[in-house]
Amino acid sequence: MKITEIAKFLNGEIFNIKEDEDITSAKSIYSATKGSITFLSDKKLLGQLKEIKASAILVSQPIEDIDITQIVVKNPAVAFYKLIELLYPEEENKEYISPTAKIGNNVKIGKNCYISDYVVIEDNVEIGDNVKIYPFCFVGKNTKILNDVILYPNVTIYKDTFIGNRVIIHSGAVIAGDGFGYYQEDGKHKKIKHIGKVIIEDDVEIGANTTIDRALTDETIIKSGTKIDNLVMIGHNCKIGENSILVSQVGIAGSCNIGKNVILAGQVGVADHINIGDNVIVTAKSGVGTDLPPNNVYGSGIPAIEWKKWKKILVYIYKLNELFKK
Amino acid sequence: MKITEIAKFLNGEIFNIKEDEDITSAKSIYSATKGSITFLSDKKLLGQLKEIKASAILVSQPIEDIDITQIVVKNPAVAFYKLIELLYPEEENKEYISPTAKIGNNVKIGKNCYISDYVVIEDNVEIGDNVKIYPFCFVGKNTKILNDVILYPNVTIYKDTFIGNRVIIHSGAVIAGDGFGYYQEDGKHKKIKHIGKVIIEDDVEIGANTTIDRALTDETIIKSGTKIDNLVMIGHNCKIGENSILVSQVGIAGSCNIGKNVILAGQVGVADHINIGDNVIVTAKSGVGTDLPPNNVYGSGIPAIEWKKWKKILVYIYKLNELFKK
Amino acid sequence: MKITEIAKFLNGEIFNIKEDEDITSAKSIYSATKGSITFLSDKKLLGQLKEIKASAILVSQPIEDIDITQIVVKNPAVAFYKLIELLYPEEENKEYISPTAKIGNNVKIGKNCYISDYVVIEDNVEIGDNVKIYPFCFVGKNTKILNDVILYPNVTIYKDTFIGNRVIIHSGAVIAGDGFGYYQEDGKHKKIKHIGKVIIEDDVEIGANTTIDRALTDETIIKSGTKIDNLVMIGHNCKIGENSILVSQVGIAGSCNIGKNVILAGQVGVADHINIGDNVIVTAKSGVGTDLPPNNVYGSGIPAIEWKKWKKILVYIYKLNELFKK
Repeated sequence: MKITEIAKFLNGEIFNIKEDEDITSAKSIYSATKGSITFLSDKKLLGQLKEIKASAILVSQPIEDIDITQIVVKNPAVAFYKLIELLYPEEENKEYISPTAKIGNNVKIGKNCYISDYVVIEDNVEIGDNVKIYPFCFVGKNTKILNDVILYPNVTIYKDTFIGNRVIIHSGAVIAGDGFGYYQEDGKHKKIKHIGKVIIEDDVEIGANTTIDRALTDETIIKSGTKIDNLVMIGHNCKIGENSILVSQVGIAGSCNIGKNVILAGQVGVADHINIGDNVIVTAKSGVGTDLPPNNVYGSGIPAIEWKKWKKILVYIYKLNELFKK
Repeated sequence: MKITEIAKFLNGEIFNIKEDEDITSAKSIYSATKGSITFLSDKKLLGQLKEIKASAILVSQPIEDIDITQIVVKNPAVAFYKLIELLYPEEENKEYISPTAKIGNNVKIGKNCYISDYVVIEDNVEIGDNVKIYPFCFVGKNTKILNDVILYPNVTIYKDTFIGNRVIIHSGAVIAGDGFGYYQEDGKHKKIKHIGKVIIEDDVEIGANTTIDRALTDETIIKSGTKIDNLVMIGHNCKIGENSILVSQVGIAGSCNIGKNVILAGQVGVADHINIGDNVIVTAKSGVGTDLPPNNVYGSGIPAIEWKKWKKILVYIYKLNELFKK
Repeated sequence: MKITEIAKFLNGEIFNIKEDEDITSAKSIYSATKGSITFLSDKKLLGQLKEIKASAILVSQPIEDIDITQIVVKNPAVAFYKLIELLYPEEENKEYISPTAKIGNNVKIGKNCYISDYVVIEDNVEIGDNVKIYPFCFVGKNTKILNDVILYPNVTIYKDTFIGNRVIIHSGAVIAGDGFGYYQEDGKHKKIKHIGKVIIEDDVEIGANTTIDRALTDETIIKSGTKIDNLVMIGHNCKIGENSILVSQVGIAGSCNIGKNVILAGQVGVADHINIGDNVIVTAKSGVGTDLPPNNVYGSGIPAIEWKKWKKILVYIYKLNELFKK
């Protein structure tokens, strides 16, 4: 694709054009070479880099100092992401059901699906159109999967699950395993049978090795547009609102109610039965133990400082009550 | 099942009966409809809910205010859990070994086992009665599995493992992978070969994507009745006592000795070679760095408060030593 | 193997020999029995143990008090690890490609490889010599795997990945899943397509259920000799230097630059775009939010103390700003 064509596609203006080269790859500003296009995320980088070898660069305003063909766009990063989709188109699904896929009784599979080798689909499953299921995925009975879903290798979906349109589930994720619940009898933990289900709405993405447990009797729900990173844990009966972001290693205990447009940063933990309002941001590693009202930022991150310095402070923290009594 | 039959089964007393309806489902108080039974966990809910649509409700004492058939029982929640088991009976195992299951040499399989498609069982494995193994499970050589065990899809058990009666292992769990141990030589990390094993005793449940590492030369042991949630890490050579509870994302480093009836709440970390006494509770997100005597509650949870407020406090924390010197 | 032969192999001196017994197993000092050899890690253990039943013990200097055959070596622990390798030799790979392994087009497989049942290898993959791939592993297209690699069961490698010599990947690990990145459009999160790759260099070990995400356009790199424990998360575009150690449940957000010989202890979290210098140690549970200069120890571990005591201190922490204003 020519630089001029890219500019047209991005609705951008060309500045300082050297030659209308063919662009064959998208690269970062550090690794770009002749034939590749890149973008400038931060003007400070220009001072740090000796040279930029890209054939073209996306910028938010023309830069006189650099002798590269520039395409001026409103948001260079977003323009770059859109360009990637154009330059690296997804392969079309070829309609195929592997003879090694084990398909149960009364399973419906829509048009143009790709069911790969060594997939197991149990009885009474319904699968929509354009669904792609990679090897070693297990889809439990009575599960319903809508259109344009991708299950990467080694995904496990226990029975009775609902998966909405355009959901992507990455490898090793486990959907609808039993909730972690026991009652006491004769000094022992007796398992509480979980007969509820998991509902994953449209446009949700679920990261690798994330686990989402089934509800006791009702539903664990991930609402549409929410994106979940790797190694996240979502307990039984949780409701996660629309368009929220759960970063890696977040853990949410049972029966929480998380609002929409919420961001829980990495390794945040949320205790059970907590309500978090809409548009809340919780900073990394926070432990949320009380309800959080909407439209605010909460956190208890302790940024690591030099250990020697922290040790001295720690001495005072651990005798704070004595010190103040004096 | 009629309401009167349920009352009889639960040893409860009927109050305010409207009609001896058929109960066909168990639901939460929020989602119950005609034909379903629910339970009252907390009297406060009555004020919050406009109406309860259940045909019957389990309560701990008769409630005059609500116009629903009530069954009065000692512990409504536990009664509800027992009722679920009655209303939703587990399907019986049908004896079956899939022709696609790869069974090694000298493997013994007991009565009434269900070995599903695409299971791999290596040489010299012994499996008891009523064991259910779902697709994509791997059972390494010399492993012994007792009776009534369930392995959900995609479970990996490395060689030499022992799995007791009625153990349940959820999808993606990895049992008996190598312990994380290296020695230094020529400035490099050399792998320490782990020849020990993992022993999972009776009635243990292991959550999805949890990992339990094999011991160096002896055994990593999970003692009977202990319940482990999803995404937990248990290091090499640990001993976890009877009836303990390890909540999601707990991490226990090597050679720890955890007592019985211990509860480690979510995201707790325990350093290596730590001893935790019986009946200890450690609150969520705590970092345990010293031995903990029995029969006590420990913790260092920092509950998230409004970020603006916390920032101000943080300023003082980071200059505590200077402030006190003044 | 005779005790005298072991002493010779370890370059050790025999002290107090009782009988030149055959040694058939290596055990810990607690579980050693007749016929086994053990080692003394700490002289204090001698006071705690009633008796040591081993036939021989590795020590750093002769100990008069114990009536066991001793082999005196410089470093008993390391000597013990080397002895394990001698006493428990690894089985040789038998060259084998299972007929149930699905091998794509244009796949090259080197000498003496063992490709087990139910492995899926996509098109254009190159595999070196002496590679062992266990069941239910998925190797995505265009991936290159060098020599002496082991993939344990249920490993997923997405397309375009590079795996160096002698790399070991444990069960459930997911390599090169999409990075967690979205841009905003019309109030929704739009997926950023990740076309980069993951490079795992020589002698890296990756623990069970660990996830390493692919880069946006360039590479996520784990450099040679680095060892990664279970349930670790490494975000897109990270570079992890040589010979570093990432302990269980560490989470590293995108675009971090971690130096060589770094140790991140258990459950450490690192924010995105952070630089950590060479030879840095970060203590368990720390949250790293700023760049860390090399050759130092950092941390913010809050060791759990008795909950009653901590609660009192917490009261003061949460009103520190008010207290100091007074």
